[in-house]
Formats: sequence, C-alpha cells, structure tokens
Amino acid sequence: MPIKQSYTDVLIIGAGPSGFMAATWLARCGIPFRIIDKRSNEIFAGQADGLQSRTLEIFKSFSEASFDFATLDQGWKVANHITEMCFWSPDANGKLVRNSRVPDSAPGISRFTECVIHQGNVEKWFEESIDNFSSGTVKVERPILPISIKVNENEADPQGYAVDVLVTKLDSESAKPEQVGKVANGLFRAFDGDQEKFYHDLESGKNEDDFEMIHAKYVIGSDGAHSWVRRQLGIDMEGEHTDYVWGVLDMTPITNFPDIRSRCAIHSKDSGSVMVIPRENDLVRFYIQLKEVERDPETKNDKSQFNGNVEDKAAKSKGRVDRSKITPESILKQAQEIFKPYTMEMTDLRWYTGYQIGQRVSPSFSAHNRVFISGDACHTHSPKAGQGMNVSMQDTYNLGFKLALVCKGLAKQDILSTYESERLKVARDLIAYDHKLSRLFSGKPMIPNSDVMDGVDLDEFHRTYREGSHFASGTISDYENSILVSKDNGLPVDADGRTMSKIATNIPIGRRLYSDPIIAQADGKPIHLGDRLASDGRFRVLLFAGDVKNNHQNMELLHKFQDSLDSQKNFLKKYTPVNAFADSVIEVLTIHACDRHDVELYDFPDFTHPLDFKRRCDYWKLYTGVGSTYHEGDIDIYETYGIDKQKGAILVIRPDSHVAQVNEFSVDGLNKVNAYFDQFMIPQLDNVLPKKEADVNDIDRFVKPRLAI
Amino acid sequence: MPIKQSYTDVLIIGAGPSGFMAATWLARCGIPFRIIDKRSNEIFAGQADGLQSRTLEIFKSFSEASFDFATLDQGWKVANHITEMCFWSPDANGKLVRNSRVPDSAPGISRFTECVIHQGNVEKWFEESIDNFSSGTVKVERPILPISIKVNENEADPQGYAVDVLVTKLDSESAKPEQVGKVANGLFRAFDGDQEKFYHDLESGKNEDDFEMIHAKYVIGSDGAHSWVRRQLGIDMEGEHTDYVWGVLDMTPITNFPDIRSRCAIHSKDSGSVMVIPRENDLVRFYIQLKEVERDPETKNDKSQFNGNVEDKAAKSKGRVDRSKITPESILKQAQEIFKPYTMEMTDLRWYTGYQIGQRVSPSFSAHNRVFISGDACHTHSPKAGQGMNVSMQDTYNLGFKLALVCKGLAKQDILSTYESERLKVARDLIAYDHKLSRLFSGKPMIPNSDVMDGVDLDEFHRTYREGSHFASGTISDYENSILVSKDNGLPVDADGRTMSKIATNIPIGRRLYSDPIIAQADGKPIHLGDRLASDGRFRVLLFAGDVKNNHQNMELLHKFQDSLDSQKNFLKKYTPVNAFADSVIEVLTIHACDRHDVELYDFPDFTHPLDFKRRCDYWKLYTGVGSTYHEGDIDIYETYGIDKQKGAILVIRPDSHVAQVNEFSVDGLNKVNAYFDQFMIPQLDNVLPKKEADVNDIDRFVKPRLAI
Repeated sequence: MPIKQSYTDVLIIGAGPSGFMAATWLARCGIPFRIIDKRSNEIFAGQADGLQSRTLEIFKSFSEASFDFATLDQGWKVANHITEMCFWSPDANGKLVRNSRVPDSAPGISRFTECVIHQGNVEKWFEESIDNFSSGTVKVERPILPISIKVNENEADPQGYAVDVLVTKLDSESAKPEQVGKVANGLFRAFDGDQEKFYHDLESGKNEDDFEMIHAKYVIGSDGAHSWVRRQLGIDMEGEHTDYVWGVLDMTPITNFPDIRSRCAIHSKDSGSVMVIPRENDLVRFYIQLKEVERDPETKNDKSQFNGNVEDKAAKSKGRVDRSKITPESILKQAQEIFKPYTMEMTDLRWYTGYQIGQRVSPSFSAHNRVFISGDACHTHSPKAGQGMNVSMQDTYNLGFKLALVCKGLAKQDILSTYESERLKVARDLIAYDHKLSRLFSGKPMIPNSDVMDGVDLDEFHRTYREGSHFASGTISDYENSILVSKDNGLPVDADGRTMSKIATNIPIGRRLYSDPIIAQADGKPIHLGDRLASDGRFRVLLFAGDVKNNHQNMELLHKFQDSLDSQKNFLKKYTPVNAFADSVIEVLTIHACDRHDVELYDFPDFTHPLDFKRRCDYWKLYTGVGSTYHEGDIDIYETYGIDKQKGAILVIRPDSHVAQVNEFSVDGLNKVNAYFDQFMIPQLDNVLPKKEADVNDIDRFVKPRLAI
Repeated sequence: MPIKQSYTDVLIIGAGPSGFMAATWLARCGIPFRIIDKRSNEIFAGQADGLQSRTLEIFKSFSEASFDFATLDQGWKVANHITEMCFWSPDANGKLVRNSRVPDSAPGISRFTECVIHQGNVEKWFEESIDNFSSGTVKVERPILPISIKVNENEADPQGYAVDVLVTKLDSESAKPEQVGKVANGLFRAFDGDQEKFYHDLESGKNEDDFEMIHAKYVIGSDGAHSWVRRQLGIDMEGEHTDYVWGVLDMTPITNFPDIRSRCAIHSKDSGSVMVIPRENDLVRFYIQLKEVERDPETKNDKSQFNGNVEDKAAKSKGRVDRSKITPESILKQAQEIFKPYTMEMTDLRWYTGYQIGQRVSPSFSAHNRVFISGDACHTHSPKAGQGMNVSMQDTYNLGFKLALVCKGLAKQDILSTYESERLKVARDLIAYDHKLSRLFSGKPMIPNSDVMDGVDLDEFHRTYREGSHFASGTISDYENSILVSKDNGLPVDADGRTMSKIATNIPIGRRLYSDPIIAQADGKPIHLGDRLASDGRFRVLLFAGDVKNNHQNMELLHKFQDSLDSQKNFLKKYTPVNAFADSVIEVLTIHACDRHDVELYDFPDFTHPLDFKRRCDYWKLYTGVGSTYHEGDIDIYETYGIDKQKGAILVIRPDSHVAQVNEFSVDGLNKVNAYFDQFMIPQLDNVLPKKEADVNDIDRFVKPRLAI
C-alpha cells in the first residue's frame, strides 16, 4: 500500500510559542496549514513565563479583531503585572541591602508593561485562538515525528508544493517527557526522535499506516533548541556556553524579605546571585546561582544536540556537575545563603530545573525561501531577561503575515527573504545583550568603600539592565531598509538609532508604530490606534489629513484622493482581487486634526465612509487625532507622532504594525505609496475570487475582516 | 410510586438576567441551589440590551476574583460602548436638526460607561460564570414548570426547608416560543404553563415520573412580568398602562443620517419619536413610535397576565391595534417618516417587536422572608432608558449575598427583610422616572419661535434625560438606615440626597463605594479599590490609617488594633468559623496615606500581612492611597473620598460594595464596627467547619477566596 500523500500550504513543525504564533497568523488569514509536534502532551508547569510589552501588544492585536473572547489578550488580565525592579547588594559592611528601585518597564514605551505567567497558559490561549480563527478546522497534531525533509529547489512557482516532509505517528509513551518524582521538573531529556529507526521501519514495510508524506509549499521549523529542521538544513549554531550553573524554583516562599513581590536582582557578597520573579497566583520564580563550573574543552565546539540543561552538560563534562545534587532542596539551600540575613523557606513547589546555557545564534534562518526556522531553533540564551518566549513569538509574528501574503498570491515570494534579514539582527542584539547582562549578574560584586574592590561594578549592572529594558520590551526592534521598509531616502539616524523623517519627527521608520488614542468621527468613541491595526494580514495606509477645517487645501486634497483610490492604476484597486471587499488587502484610514464637533462625517469623501456590496456603511475609517474625550481626558496623536497639524502626513503600516513608509500628505506622497506596493505586490486586476470566498462573512462583515475576503 | 423528593438551600425559578444574578452569587459563595426555567431554550436575538455603569461594576466584581476568564466582564470588552447622546428635533421651520449633544454617561460617576449588547450574550456569560463558580455542578434545569408552592410559616429554623415547590418536566415542544416567519421576533405569547392540567395529571397518577417535590429553605421568583410566583403569593402589580404603541427593530440601517452610531432621541414635528441605540457588530436598535392608541377601559384594571406586547393588548382591546400590521416593514415605514429628510433603509434584520407597556410596580417583594420576587416580576416599564435588565440584576445582586450569609448560618434571617426595603424604593424611583421620561419622549414637541407652541417642552425633556442619567447609571441607588446600613447618627442629607459624615465628606453612606486606584505596598502595583472588593460574599473593614509616617499616633493605633482583631470578643474572630481562613467572613484592609517608598511592609502590624495555616503570607491587605505610579499617573483616594490624611477613617463595606458605616479612625471607631456586626451576625466561636471545607482551595487559596472557606 502506498504511503498516504497530503498537501498543505504551510507545515509548522513544533507547537511551542513560536510555532503557535505562526499558526495563529495563518489561521487568522485563512491559509491552509498544519502544525505537528512530537510530544504527546502540553506543558503544565515551568518553562518560560515572561510576557514583554511588545508581545502583549501583539496578543492584543489578534484579540481585538475577534468578537470571540477566548483569545490571547487574556494574558494581560490574568498574568502578574510586575511593577518594580529592586536591586539588592551588600553594603560596605557586607550586609544585604536594597540598593535602588526602578520601574520594571520603562514608562512611555507601550500601553502594556511586563507581566509573567506560566507558559502552559499561553499555549492554551494559542490553541483557543487557532481553533477560533480556523473555525475549528486546525488542531495541533501530536505526537507526530518528522522523519525526512526534501526541498525541490527547482520549483519556481511560489504556489508549488516544493517541500516534502515524511512524518510518522508516534505511540504516546515514547513521546512523553520523563519526570522525576511528583513535582514537575525540567531535568528531563527531551525526546529527540530516532528518525533512523523509523526510516528503517518504513523501508521494511513495517507500520506503513503510521506514515504520511506531507507536500507543503512552505515549512517552518519551530522545534526548539535541538531543532531537527535546523540540523536537516545543515545549519550550526554559533556562540559559546557559560561557566555558570543556575537552579530554578517555582514555589511559594515563606520569607521576611520585603521585596518578594517585586522583581529583584540580588548580588550577595560571597554566595552568588538570585533573580526573583513574582508570578501569578502568589507563586514566585527564583533563578539561583548554584556554583562555578570549569569549562570542559570537549563540549566547547560540540555540534550535537546540547539542550542546555544540566543533565546533558553533566553527561558530557566528565561528571563535574552531579545531576543528583540538583534537587529543589539543594537549590533552596543556596538561595538561603544568598538571602541572608533574610529567611527563606519553601512551600507549594510547582517546578524546578537546573541549567547552564550560553549564548548561541544560528547564522541563517532559512533555506531557499521555502524552509524557515524560528525561536529556540535560532537562538538560545539565558532566561533571566525574560526574552526567550517573546523573541521566539516575535520571530514568527514577523514571518507569518509574509507567508500569508505569498500563499494568497498577493505578494511575491521575495518578501520572504526579509524574514532572515529582519530577525537575525534582533537575535544577534539579543545574544549580545544577554551575554553582557548575564555575566554582570553572575559575577561577584565589587563593594564600594570596602576591601572588595574587584568584581562586577554594580552600577554598570544596573545601567545595563535599565538601558536594556527598552530592548527587552521588544518595542524597539528595528527593521532595516528593504522592499518592505522604505528608509532609503537619506534619512538621518539619531543617537538612539532611530531613523526618522521631518514629516513625523517621532515615528521611527522600521519600528512598530507606538499606539495612542484617536476618536472615531462617527460615534465619538476613543480607541487606541493600535486596535485599528489588528493583525488580520492587511496593510494600512494612514492619511493624517491635518486640520481640514481651517486648511481647506487639505480637505480638497482628500477629495482628490478619491479619484486616485478609485483608479485601477493605483495600489488600492490594483492589488485587491476584483470581487473582494475593497479594504481586504490594504485599508485606508483617515485621521484628521479637527475637533470632532467642528466637522461632519459627510463633509469627507466617500472612501472615509465607504459602502459595501449591500450598501452598508463602514463608519470606522474616519477619526480625529485631536480633542477632548468625555471620560478619558484630552488626546493629541499629532503631537505624539510629531506630525504638523497643518501639513499632515501619509504612513504605510505593515500587517505587523511596523512603519514601512512616511510620506508627505500630498499627491506625490500618495504616489510614493504606489511605488512602495509596486515593489512586491502582485496585481489582482484579473483575480476573481471563487464566489464562496467573496460571500463569506456576509452578516458578520465587521466581526472578522481578514486578508482578501 | 411516591414522587421524587429533593432538598436544596435555594430554588431559583426563572433563568433570565435576574435569576442568573442570584445564581451567580450563590454559586460564588458555595451555597447549594437549583435554578429552573420553563422555556426549553435560551434567547438568541432581541430583548434587553443596555448595560449600565453599575451593572458593569458588578460584572467586574465577579470576574476579578476568578482566575478563569470565561466570566462576566466580557461585557465590557465586546459590547458597544455608547459615547454620545444626540438630541434631534424640528427647527423653527420644522426641519429635523441636531439640537444638542451630551455625554451618554455622566463623566465621573464610574470607571464604566453605558454599553449595549444582546441579552443572549449576557445570559451565556452568566451560565459560564455559574459553571465556573460551582465547579460544573449547577446548570439551568429546563424546561421545568412549577406547579404549586407552599410555605410553612411556622418553620422557625432559618435552616429549615420551609418551602415546598412541586415541579414537572415539560416536553420541549410546549416550552418553545412560537416564532412568526424567519426573523426572530418578540410578538409571541410566552408560554404561561397550564398548572391546573399538570396538577390534574398528577392527581390521576399520569406521568408521575415527570414530577418532583423540591424542598427549599428559600425561593426566588425571577420569572418575569407574568410571574407565576408573584401570583401564587397573591401580589398584584400597581400602576398603569400607556396609550403609546412602539415598534422595535434590530437591523443594519442604510442611511445618510450622520449620528446613527450615537444614541439619539429624535422628536419629529408630526410623525412621532425615535430612539436610536447603536449596538455591537454595527447593528442598530430603533425604538419607533407607531401611533397613539386610546386607552381601553376594560384593560385598565386587568389583573391577568398582561405581558406588555401588542398581541395581548390587541386581544383585549377590541382589535384597536391590528397585530397583522405590526411588521418590520410597517415599523420601518414609520421610521422613514420620522427621519425625513434623511433616508432610512434596512438590511440584516435580526429581530423586531411591538410593545405598549406602562409603569407598574409590585407593592411587596417577598413573603415570610422565605419567598422573594425580583426583576420584571416586581416592576415593568418602558425599555427606552435601558433599565430593565439592569435593575432586575441589581435586585438579586442585593438579595443573593444576604441569602448566602443566612444559608451559611453566619447571619440572622432578619437581614432578608432589607431586600424589600432597599429594592422597593429603587423600583418606585425607576417607575416615576420612566413615567416622566417616556411621556416627554412620546409627546409631540413644542417648537420654539414657531406656531407650534403647545406640546412637549424639549428643554424639559433634555433636562429630565440628563438629570436622570445618574439614576439610570445605577450608581446612586441609596439604601436607607437598617441593620445593614448605619445612617442613624443624625447625619445631614445634602441637596443630592446623599447622607455623608464629616469623616469622609465624599462617601455617601448607603450607596455603593465609588472606586479609585490604590497602590499595593508589597509590589507597587496600582489596583482599583473596587477590584479588592470582589463579590465573594465577604464584608470588608477598610482602615484608612492616614499618614502613619508623620503621624505616629496613627501607626501606634494600628498596632493597638492587632490586639482587638485577635480577641474573640471582637468581630473578626467572633463571626468567623474557628477553622476557616481568618478573612473568610470579614476582610480587613489597610490603606495608608504615605509615599510607599517611605514606609516598609514590616513596619506595619501582622494583620496587614497575615500568614495562613501554611505560613504563606497574604501580601494584599496593605495599600497606600496616595502617591505616584510609574505608568498611570498620580493617585489620591483620600482626596477622592474626602478623608483627612491626618485623621483617617474606618469604613465598613457590605458584600455588595455598599457603604454600611463610616467611623473615625480610633479605638472607638473600631468598637462601632463591633456594634454594627453584633446587630445581625451569629457568633461562630463554636463552629468548626467540616474538614473538607476548611482544606478546600489549599494551593489555590489566593485564586478563589470565598465566604467562610
């Protein structure tokens, strides 16, 4: 009997946060895809827990568009919001004292601040989101192991099924992580799969029914630090391991330490360091430095699957770290030393682990613009800056909409190469930051005015931490000039690395657009602009029309734009399938700068209050960026963005909310928008969608608009 | 075969919003109860849609305590927030013009503003909440019809099963509302049940298995305007019908009327009035005046089940209103006349109905402190002020915690009589407001500077509407002096009807406590005080300790309070079962007035950071009410409440967030708290809870604290 053959647009290998984020994008945009995982069960304890500002913005962007509530922005409600970061270190007498306190998230960078919650919750919300967006058609398939992958490099058609992945269904037992004792712990060796054995089975005709050949247009390997996909692509990680061994405890502490509900970085005089992360449900996570371990030369250039936990290290470094000594009690004992003179006891232990990870990054994130790797498969580093889960999700948040655009036939395959160019830089910055921070955190402190004058300069540590908090928030990821980002007009770069135009002196091009409230013309309701930039796969063109009441040219220009937008020569008609909703690929929003009561909805051209095929009006295209609200104070998004209220501006925003282009508010500015899309979009003037698709979501038009429906 | 006999603490008859709110309370507090409904299905369209500020506060109060997200505060996310109210009326030439615009919800009265969503959603959230709080043990039982009810007035034990209710299971067909055509409509006659027939069946031994005798301690009749329970108690509604007939449409309008996404009250010159309610999902509800109908003398004193819809009226008033003419098209036709010169067409019709309801109120809400009626069973009125669903839920929000306290044996049965005294006043105020508003809205307008000088004075209408918006918000419901509210110390009543002490010059006693942010001492996180007053059945004593840093007496006093709270003579120990969590009946929170960085957690006495039986600390008892936050600006709840920062105050807050008592911050003030609880609480010094209960929620202690666990 021949093996089962099947076809899908995208195959995602690995159902962790990174794979899930890709799946959420694809489900949201209506792309056929599958997601497989070799483990038989989800995560119930431990693992990553930090949700940074940018991640929460992304979660919100998937939630706002959906009427269904079972979605990602639950994170912001149930996770523990961390408010303050406290630094503790020895005073001149060696006594542990609070050195300083700073806001945990830098004020003013986002409407969300860092919060923490167990990774299992995040994965549950993702599963619900995917279920919701795919109308129940896509579930994680597990336990499924990939056996082989083959890329047909000669397949020129972006819609061709160029990647063949052979997979097999595992029995549940071999896919379960091994647990030691009753308390969940992270000291298990992840099941790597024995592809050889399964391949041999297949050759010999054994268990044929368990195998399936999946033909995919594109494949994403989100399969963790050991990434099978990465190894198949022949990509090695670059970087180094560390000397430091850390223990992790998730438990409820019994202590008289006063800052146990704040995030704390504690350097003790002689006993090592502790990071305190107060969690949901009065749980606390502790990262506790265990002891120094000499580097084992044999492991330094180890190309095998170093998974970063103590067991592996121990196995390979001649038993220097004795795994049997890594117990919750041994970790706690070290914590007690560090916390002295404060007491520290433990109850309700939920999870523990030990790790000894370095900073490593993959030099390449993709092959042939067909196979991509993301998350831990591309970068591994210490968990203490709360970055892992976040950067991993942000990788695929970058990749997902691009794959959706390509799979829908709306954009050229070329755009996929921006995934690596955009995310590799972020990964390298992350590795550099983590390298610096973790060494400053692991080192013995210098104590001013004492005899301990060598060691880590704690002022430098605090400064590094504070300066890094912008980076760590994920809000300043900056994408370089490319076909998707227009920085190529000789714009200056400021001291903070931002590329900004004089047209909008506070909007860094290439970074995500900061969100501020605007007011809907139709009903006076304040809404965050970010919530109008929902993650549904669409580009947005924002027309900042300025003060159209006092500046008549601006209103005239707006009316003139109506003709441009109606023309098949221009971006809006040209790149939208002929029978799709007019705003289903690119949405045009207008934000003026008048008091809402001084102008009327019907003063503005039709594209600001367009009618659909049933002549139902879309009232949510026209806003004011300036004025008073009844309940939420005054707003001025022109001020926030540095846009002149007389001159205005035109912005192009990518589906991931990154600023693609900043133009002047003029006919020329609108033409530049054409030029932007002409680089990579595929004309749709002959594309008539199958009737079914065009009719979809009739009555629920305003509930779930999405790419090209 | 004898009929099945069963026992429950509370039987709720009727699963509409009012019954559901009672059920939510009881589930939240862990009371055994059942909820039955004679209809076989839920509501899918139409009915009530307004959620007022106070209702949203209540929803939030049930949600905050729960870690599970499938709860009531979804309303605030998915409902349509109405921002502005626009008044339209004829100008001097008779042309329809916008007369004025005001905020739909008065600024400053609540952190929530009015929003609207279809009643079916609200009921779905209630079902999820009940499922969540009862751990899946309680579901609405339907279709179940009550046949007879008997109260044993001689049962002196509050825990005795004094009410016998005979019920029968209906077949689904007889319990379904009749629908006309494809579009859901409200023109059906609700199934009233034929108790006689079923009783006869039982007598003759037919279908014996379908019957059940439920023995309940207490019964709530939340069974609508026709209330079977009310009729069994022999209570007649008082009040009158109206002359005006209104049509209702839920549809997507196609119109050039500019304010269609605002709430509008439109008086036309000659064609009647329209109320516009913009809904979720771009739906709009229209209340459209159809025509005037003369009062039929025969129906005026009609004691039968007048259900307020046109069909009933038509059936009884000699065909004056021809039901067959009440079609969506006929309603729309009238709307088109009123909206002229603006166009008005219709698409996506979801629901329609006609009604002709007056203002009626039940003179009594309970019998023998055993059977209670609530919601439409007690008061019927026009829907245009968006009150029905809200006041109905607020009725049982008042009743539910009292029943929980009595059923747990914590409070005396006497407190139940405050249900009627507190809610009957609200119902009468509502009826008076609705009577005035609906007549002003239904009348032909007077047009200033024209020849139409008789009719409704629109200025009076606008004034009535605006002044009524505080009442309509539900936030100023004011409960009189009773064993549950201490107003009896000769306090003055101000021009707005508020009773306030000099100790807290902006806290009206008897009203719900307005919520403002405070900052947790332990982690610096700002949190709304309202979110610390979760609806879990507990009373709170709030110690406003003032500036304890500069005012040492206040800190000394706080430390002195430790002894009082430890004494079995005082409220905290005296009224809490001996092995229950110390805060499971009355929770003491301390809110000081110092900068959080100027004091330390462990400067304060133990009761501000108490340990539980595992010595886990509860960090969430101590706050500052004054200071700066990193992300949310400055706060000062002392200023908000009019509490002197040197003198402080002690508040007692009921489980429904109403202010029970305002005392000075002193030993004497704390003694008054004793006196308050001594009036109605039952000492628990001999009450040892069954071990199971005391051990419940061990690890999840901080997730779902609730009454006496």
